[in-house]
Amino acid sequence: MADRIYTLHHKDCHCKARTGEIKLGHGVVQTPMFMPVGTNGTVKGIYHDRVAQIGYNLILGNTYHLYLRPGVDVLASFDGLHGFSNWHGNILTDSGGFQVFSLSSLRKIHEMGVKFQSHIDGSRHVFTPEKVVDIQQTIGSDIAMMLDVCSAPGISWKETLHAMDITHLWAERAIIHRDSLLDTTGRAFRGNLFGIVQGGFYEDLRRKSAQVIGSMDFPGIAIGGLSVGESKEDFCHYLAITADAVTDAKPRYVMGIGTPDYILEAVENGIDLFDCVLATRTARNGSVFTDDGMLTLSRSFNEFDHRPIQEGCTCEACTHYSRAYMRHMFKCNEMLGGMLATEHNLTYLYHLIVKVRRAIEEDRFQSFKQDYLKRFYANDGRCLG
Amino acid sequence: MADRIYTLHHKDCHCKARTGEIKLGHGVVQTPMFMPVGTNGTVKGIYHDRVAQIGYNLILGNTYHLYLRPGVDVLASFDGLHGFSNWHGNILTDSGGFQVFSLSSLRKIHEMGVKFQSHIDGSRHVFTPEKVVDIQQTIGSDIAMMLDVCSAPGISWKETLHAMDITHLWAERAIIHRDSLLDTTGRAFRGNLFGIVQGGFYEDLRRKSAQVIGSMDFPGIAIGGLSVGESKEDFCHYLAITADAVTDAKPRYVMGIGTPDYILEAVENGIDLFDCVLATRTARNGSVFTDDGMLTLSRSFNEFDHRPIQEGCTCEACTHYSRAYMRHMFKCNEMLGGMLATEHNLTYLYHLIVKVRRAIEEDRFQSFKQDYLKRFYANDGRCLG
Repeated sequence: MADRIYTLHHKDCHCKARTGEIKLGHGVVQTPMFMPVGTNGTVKGIYHDRVAQIGYNLILGNTYHLYLRPGVDVLASFDGLHGFSNWHGNILTDSGGFQVFSLSSLRKIHEMGVKFQSHIDGSRHVFTPEKVVDIQQTIGSDIAMMLDVCSAPGISWKETLHAMDITHLWAERAIIHRDSLLDTTGRAFRGNLFGIVQGGFYEDLRRKSAQVIGSMDFPGIAIGGLSVGESKEDFCHYLAITADAVTDAKPRYVMGIGTPDYILEAVENGIDLFDCVLATRTARNGSVFTDDGMLTLSRSFNEFDHRPIQEGCTCEACTHYSRAYMRHMFKCNEMLGGMLATEHNLTYLYHLIVKVRRAIEEDRFQSFKQDYLKRFYANDGRCLG
Repeated sequence: MADRIYTLHHKDCHCKARTGEIKLGHGVVQTPMFMPVGTNGTVKGIYHDRVAQIGYNLILGNTYHLYLRPGVDVLASFDGLHGFSNWHGNILTDSGGFQVFSLSSLRKIHEMGVKFQSHIDGSRHVFTPEKVVDIQQTIGSDIAMMLDVCSAPGISWKETLHAMDITHLWAERAIIHRDSLLDTTGRAFRGNLFGIVQGGFYEDLRRKSAQVIGSMDFPGIAIGGLSVGESKEDFCHYLAITADAVTDAKPRYVMGIGTPDYILEAVENGIDLFDCVLATRTARNGSVFTDDGMLTLSRSFNEFDHRPIQEGCTCEACTHYSRAYMRHMFKCNEMLGGMLATEHNLTYLYHLIVKVRRAIEEDRFQSFKQDYLKRFYANDGRCLG
């Protein structure tokens, strides 16, 4: 039996938003929580000690990427990604399934598993539900993901059903393998294996998948197959249906959401964990979060602006540098621009989540959400002057 | 009269190597000292607070680049580069002359000054000896450089003489302008203006220029026109001739040298300051200093290497990461690779200079140099395994 890792703290009395904590191998994670993405064993553009200083103690790694580079033998020699990457907090790894579908060529799904070619050198590989558990055991993931079949948006009910059925089959195999695993050092499985709900954009399949995955012996549930190009309305609709159909007793994770509107939507539906590359990727492109929306640092209106990116923000960029300096960094393509903007965006999102938790505890999440988004999108997504 | 800023501590009794200190507006600099280069108001790939933590309190800025971007109006609004860039130590700026010659197109030298077009947008500009003093006053440079004429290597005696004569004329004009300057805020010149010796690769012109510039009212002397593509033998020969011909009473600076052999050669000739982009540029390309020569991090022999780049090094890379992790960063083109390698190279050079100073104080610089270079180049410049 998987351990119970989630403890509910408080549920907002006006909606499904909730605070809680997840107990993991490298510390307790307060939820809701945004997770920075460290695809290759580094959150791009920032030192791991600064990520921890902001307050994060759960980051993402990417099974597909880490399996290809540096490879499991290198990771095993360091007893996993913690030892290799000098990250002392928790690590969640995805299953690699999404990357196999989005990055690699010539992928082929069988009931056995998925064959694919590396996007780096074209080498041939196979992921099975069992192998993906093994890889994440080597990585030392505190939260591991089962291998799932990510069905593309827009496919038929029948194809979605087929992808879901294979996902459910793989879920069973992953659990069986997890429970029997003894690795080369004689250790049992050391992480927490999460199940993934699929079912595409069909209500009946979503409910079915939530029920099947939710009833299996997983300590946590990920909601997959969302944020894959669908409309905002579809995202909200299918998120709500799926979230309603999974148990309250386990932590819920939605992959790939990172803008304030999606994050707040997820929180309102009782989601506890989410991740996105957006915060760090847009930072490297010079786009940063402010309470008044996204600010494009290279724009000329910043040239003489002595103000910090966001008044009151505690990050290195906001406490030591002006918008004018940040603009100069991006105009000159200086690395420090991306470094500082990354630190800002991660700090900003962390403190947004802290405010979200406080609002939930005080039963005012919905008004917080409304006020926050009203100001954030007051400029209709245009840059501010 | 310019202030006397240099105090000799100790001269090695077997050679011209010396230790001393330079008193500047933002603290005392122990010499010999290597200066990290921060062309655009940032040392590439590293936070300014980390540069200071290593021990550096004098970095370079680039007048040509800063004049074009962010421009003097922006810098003036921050009362200079210190306020703009959050660097609290000293700043030395070059005159911009070298960049005008190496980067800009359609440059044209007159006795009046030099006309050039920006390498960024083709806009037309003029640098005069006076204007370059003004720009560096706005930057707030603790050490400023006079505008000089950098003559290309391989030109005739007559052309070199002409370039030298203009340089000497500009030196006089720079001093006159410095002494009469009152900036827009009513302040007199706030930095220390260094003269630059030219004379190319002609012994008589080198000695003449050293004598002329050395006798002028400059608080420090830069030796220009070296490290411009000449052979190592020529560099050593003309460095020795020039260094011998300038006064002992002022700090001596040689531009653009950053490999251990050139640094140690300069120190042996009584040079106090040097700078080079090499340490930070090669770091971003994954090449790092070790006592056994340069190590190329991406090479496959690092794949399983748990050792730090350099045993005993106190930098973030060496205290927290393995060569295997560093290799992984460079194989994946992760920013953190360049960030950590930059921190390592700057830390390594700083501690090399600390050892150099100790060796001088103990009158054993020459044996230190010999031992150090023997080990550093034992692999004939090939990467180590």
